[in-house]
Amino acid sequence: MKEITSTKNAYIKELKKLDKKKYRDETNRYIVEGEHLVQEAIKAGAAIEGVLCTETGQMLYEDMAKEVCIEDVYLVTEEVMKSLSSVPAPQGIIAVIRKGKEEAIPQSGTFLLLDGVQDPGNVGTMIRTADAAGIKTVILGEGTADIYNSKVLRSMQGSHFHVTVRQAVLTEVIAEMKENNIQVYGTELNPEAVSYRTVEKANEFALVMGNEGQGVSKEVLALTDKQLYIPIVGQAESLNVAIAAGILMFSLT
Amino acid sequence: MKEITSTKNAYIKELKKLDKKKYRDETNRYIVEGEHLVQEAIKAGAAIEGVLCTETGQMLYEDMAKEVCIEDVYLVTEEVMKSLSSVPAPQGIIAVIRKGKEEAIPQSGTFLLLDGVQDPGNVGTMIRTADAAGIKTVILGEGTADIYNSKVLRSMQGSHFHVTVRQAVLTEVIAEMKENNIQVYGTELNPEAVSYRTVEKANEFALVMGNEGQGVSKEVLALTDKQLYIPIVGQAESLNVAIAAGILMFSLT
Repeated sequence: MKEITSTKNAYIKELKKLDKKKYRDETNRYIVEGEHLVQEAIKAGAAIEGVLCTETGQMLYEDMAKEVCIEDVYLVTEEVMKSLSSVPAPQGIIAVIRKGKEEAIPQSGTFLLLDGVQDPGNVGTMIRTADAAGIKTVILGEGTADIYNSKVLRSMQGSHFHVTVRQAVLTEVIAEMKENNIQVYGTELNPEAVSYRTVEKANEFALVMGNEGQGVSKEVLALTDKQLYIPIVGQAESLNVAIAAGILMFSLT
Repeated sequence: MKEITSTKNAYIKELKKLDKKKYRDETNRYIVEGEHLVQEAIKAGAAIEGVLCTETGQMLYEDMAKEVCIEDVYLVTEEVMKSLSSVPAPQGIIAVIRKGKEEAIPQSGTFLLLDGVQDPGNVGTMIRTADAAGIKTVILGEGTADIYNSKVLRSMQGSHFHVTVRQAVLTEVIAEMKENNIQVYGTELNPEAVSYRTVEKANEFALVMGNEGQGVSKEVLALTDKQLYIPIVGQAESLNVAIAAGILMFSLT
């Protein structure tokens, strides 16, 4: 096991740059952090370039490593780990992962489409919930937080290893869905829309969730087959978008 | 309008201490921030001790102030506002609110009980969702984030002005509910529990949601009438607790 003791080490400096989307895209890599996510990456057979762990993290790693052979494992100091970590109290284990080949968007099935959802926590939680609801594909439209952002990864809890997640232009994706006769549901805070409680479960559909403040863009909404809304009984003006997505996904599937 | 230009002003130093629960409890006050929350406080007739705004915030305030008379309004510098704000880009308006007299816990109706929910964002979002679902009372049990924490307030979006929120010992509250014949539902990640889809809507019930990692404590679970679970179809191991609460509340009400 190689050791890295300085935050100025060239590899560490390179990895630090992976907190920028631009550099992740250029080098086709990203970082996952913590026992659960590294384990999920191993379980999913992700292309792991390397694992970095502190002395504490080493024990976590040795438990996992029984099942897999990873070439580059580095023992790093707490200081080096802190410099890479995105949380105040790191668990002491990080994996550097090569992004897989982008899978094609399926021609059928169930889909969650995100239109300008900005908050990384919301995006990650929605992908995790889609996974739990059995939705197979999530499409991240323009203005949506990047899937490899550390906060998205943290709230997603490894669901991107189970669900196909793709970036795409939503108007194009929806046009193709219509050719394939997939019902596309928009969501609106508009009581003239259809209450989600009246919509029957289906094996094929796409659900579009929109930006936290603005909702689904007009352009995208115009392409949907139905607009759904969640009737609000109390005095709250709206629901958090991830909560609304959860209620809708578990009602539609 | 009085002016405050120094972060060392005695009133500002006092207000800064309100980010500690201990000091909020001692002085019976808390701070809400931003246009929406200050407006909600005015609309709800909350006891507003004072409003602080920057030049930008002043315009927001003047729109609101048409409807209400607040004695102490302070014009403060951007620097003073930043020193009080809990967000990176303050909107420039803050209100200091006196906590109301604690209302008694109702003897009937619908309830959300939180057992050791630690994440302030989760707690706030759940109270906002309870409000939207028409649930009237939320009880914060031991180990649950404080309702006047700035992150809780931010994700709650003013719902504490619409819903009764109380801190209490859950085992005592549940014991009383049982005397009043209110069904108490626990939640568990256990397929031997009852699927929430089989439970009928009701006018009276209490739903208990638990800690992010540990779930509902054994002690509390033992007192519940039924344990509900949400069937997971995909490979996600669990749902975020606020998402699970949203699905359950909208299914039960």
